[in-house]
Amino acid sequence: MPAGSRRHLMDKTMQRRNTKQVAAGPLRFGSGQRILVQTMTKVFTTDVEACVRQIRRLERAGCDLVRIAVPTRADTEAFAQIVQRVKMPLAADVHFAADRAIEAIEAGAVKIRLNPGNVKDAADIRRVIDCAKSHGAAIRVGVNEASIRDLKADVPAERRTALMLEELRVYLRLFEKMGFENLVLSAKSANTARTIEVNRAIAQAFDYPLHIGLTHAGLPEDALVPSSVAIGTLLAEGIGDTIRVSVAGDPVKEIQIGRQILQSLGLLERMGPELIVCPTCGRCRIDVVGLAGKVKRLLKDVHTPMRVAVMGCIVNGPGEAADADLAICAAEGKGYIYRKGQKIAVVEAALLLETLKEELKKLEQTS
Amino acid sequence: MPAGSRRHLMDKTMQRRNTKQVAAGPLRFGSGQRILVQTMTKVFTTDVEACVRQIRRLERAGCDLVRIAVPTRADTEAFAQIVQRVKMPLAADVHFAADRAIEAIEAGAVKIRLNPGNVKDAADIRRVIDCAKSHGAAIRVGVNEASIRDLKADVPAERRTALMLEELRVYLRLFEKMGFENLVLSAKSANTARTIEVNRAIAQAFDYPLHIGLTHAGLPEDALVPSSVAIGTLLAEGIGDTIRVSVAGDPVKEIQIGRQILQSLGLLERMGPELIVCPTCGRCRIDVVGLAGKVKRLLKDVHTPMRVAVMGCIVNGPGEAADADLAICAAEGKGYIYRKGQKIAVVEAALLLETLKEELKKLEQTS
Repeated sequence: MPAGSRRHLMDKTMQRRNTKQVAAGPLRFGSGQRILVQTMTKVFTTDVEACVRQIRRLERAGCDLVRIAVPTRADTEAFAQIVQRVKMPLAADVHFAADRAIEAIEAGAVKIRLNPGNVKDAADIRRVIDCAKSHGAAIRVGVNEASIRDLKADVPAERRTALMLEELRVYLRLFEKMGFENLVLSAKSANTARTIEVNRAIAQAFDYPLHIGLTHAGLPEDALVPSSVAIGTLLAEGIGDTIRVSVAGDPVKEIQIGRQILQSLGLLERMGPELIVCPTCGRCRIDVVGLAGKVKRLLKDVHTPMRVAVMGCIVNGPGEAADADLAICAAEGKGYIYRKGQKIAVVEAALLLETLKEELKKLEQTS
Repeated sequence: MPAGSRRHLMDKTMQRRNTKQVAAGPLRFGSGQRILVQTMTKVFTTDVEACVRQIRRLERAGCDLVRIAVPTRADTEAFAQIVQRVKMPLAADVHFAADRAIEAIEAGAVKIRLNPGNVKDAADIRRVIDCAKSHGAAIRVGVNEASIRDLKADVPAERRTALMLEELRVYLRLFEKMGFENLVLSAKSANTARTIEVNRAIAQAFDYPLHIGLTHAGLPEDALVPSSVAIGTLLAEGIGDTIRVSVAGDPVKEIQIGRQILQSLGLLERMGPELIVCPTCGRCRIDVVGLAGKVKRLLKDVHTPMRVAVMGCIVNGPGEAADADLAICAAEGKGYIYRKGQKIAVVEAALLLETLKEELKKLEQTS
């Protein structure tokens, strides 16, 4: 394969789509910037203590931005208190009432989410834009497959991508006419294929940063695969500047999955070790899964990025070991320990874990 | 957006890459065919009873093809017994020893996996090809990042895609020279981005069906996201004719995840219901996650494909309900029940589950 064409393929994986640069408090969205991971609080906004606790947990999990729903005046008042108590940049989730958006921005929201289709009066949207402009807040302009204005039960699914795109275009005209371009766009669907399709279309049509995610993905066991497929595919094509994984449950889980998606594509550095484990097969002579579980527990105390492999046989073992900082390749009743691809010990199965532990310590001390 | 360009985007999502057609017993690999889901047995091959049990569980889980490792003569003898006892098409996983490949094909393997780099003697590869030809067996020709022939610790990661492609090209020349084209190709890596990259390159360079998957992905909690990202991205670009999810653990799990990936992209029909759940936020006034869990248990007895939504508020609820066969939109202390987008009841929170259960029954009877 000629070098030029290989280069093209590399680019296809790695090259982020070019976008405008958008500022939201300390955060920057767009090409050249880190892809930001966000979620929402899932306790009553008026329960300030619970919100603050949840936001601090999210901060520790590596979250970049937390959005808070502010459906009532009491919620924006609580929002104002929460802003004062956390370091995390906060966004406000607004529907229907322009006043809530204005109150949240004045309280310190660095970004608001607005589906303009939910705001009846164009004059209200203009008031929000004026307020965002004077405070330097960003606005996420979103459309949602389930709430596209003209969605009737009889709109065939394959027309919805075009409808979402058209709706977004109408909104953008309004914002741009008012000279406001500090925008992040989103188009969400609970359908994975359509999420990919509509975001590819938006990426071609507009140059604003994109917020990507699958909406209403479901309970954790149902949400993980489709969210990873939708967000992963788009990121692998260079599309997406901030991501939100939707899972019915603890928002910390959303951040963990979001970070895993980014790490899998090399878009976010791992904080700790990576554990490679062979899936095992009929060749496997020791309990690899049990051993890997124990190795994983050992690695909980390791905070240096490193690659550790637990392999069940000599077919793939030595090759995978060559790429690992430490590796175990199991054989009948014993195992080989590799350090950076070099075989350094042969030990009985019962001693494998102990030996690995010592080697981990040495590796941590020298790294 | 002009219709032509939208059409292009639709195609990008949906259109499978064109490939040769490959036959393996009752199975067909390639464009126009179903994407097949496969895994491996993970018990000793010589434990015929355990293999047969595992294969039957895999059959019930929706598996299309099971591969069995046959490192020794005793294993191919066991393989011959297993073939007789299951309906599932079986493939044999062969390394180093050409004789094992020949024994497995003669015993009834519809396909074998061979990394020719593992077979020292070209004459041995020719014997295997002759045998596969006369029995109509398919051969998967694989390369693996960790075992590429000339992989040294100092080969920079970005050169490996080109090396894997080059190695595959050398093997293909050998097979094609012998007039054997009943081939499925694979190139595996434990690295998600490289897996995507190398398979994009192979899809451009060759027109054989592709077996895709991430190798050595790890324990279930680590494997799910990167496998979904790698396999999902490729499928969403039309690449991949058979998939294997690698997870250290029960192979049934691999099949479940593989099917979830295909279903998420609309490449495999769901057998039962799909449950949409909003991720909840500060607007949510009832325990949506708890309710969704209960609804999920109800749905275990439903075997008709249908879409059920559990939504926490009136912002996204009604829109999502329009797309669902049945939906609950929660409000303060009560909930609205929707049937095919029509609001049909308002009930107290405590009665929501019971009402939904009745509606489910009605829906199943009429569908």
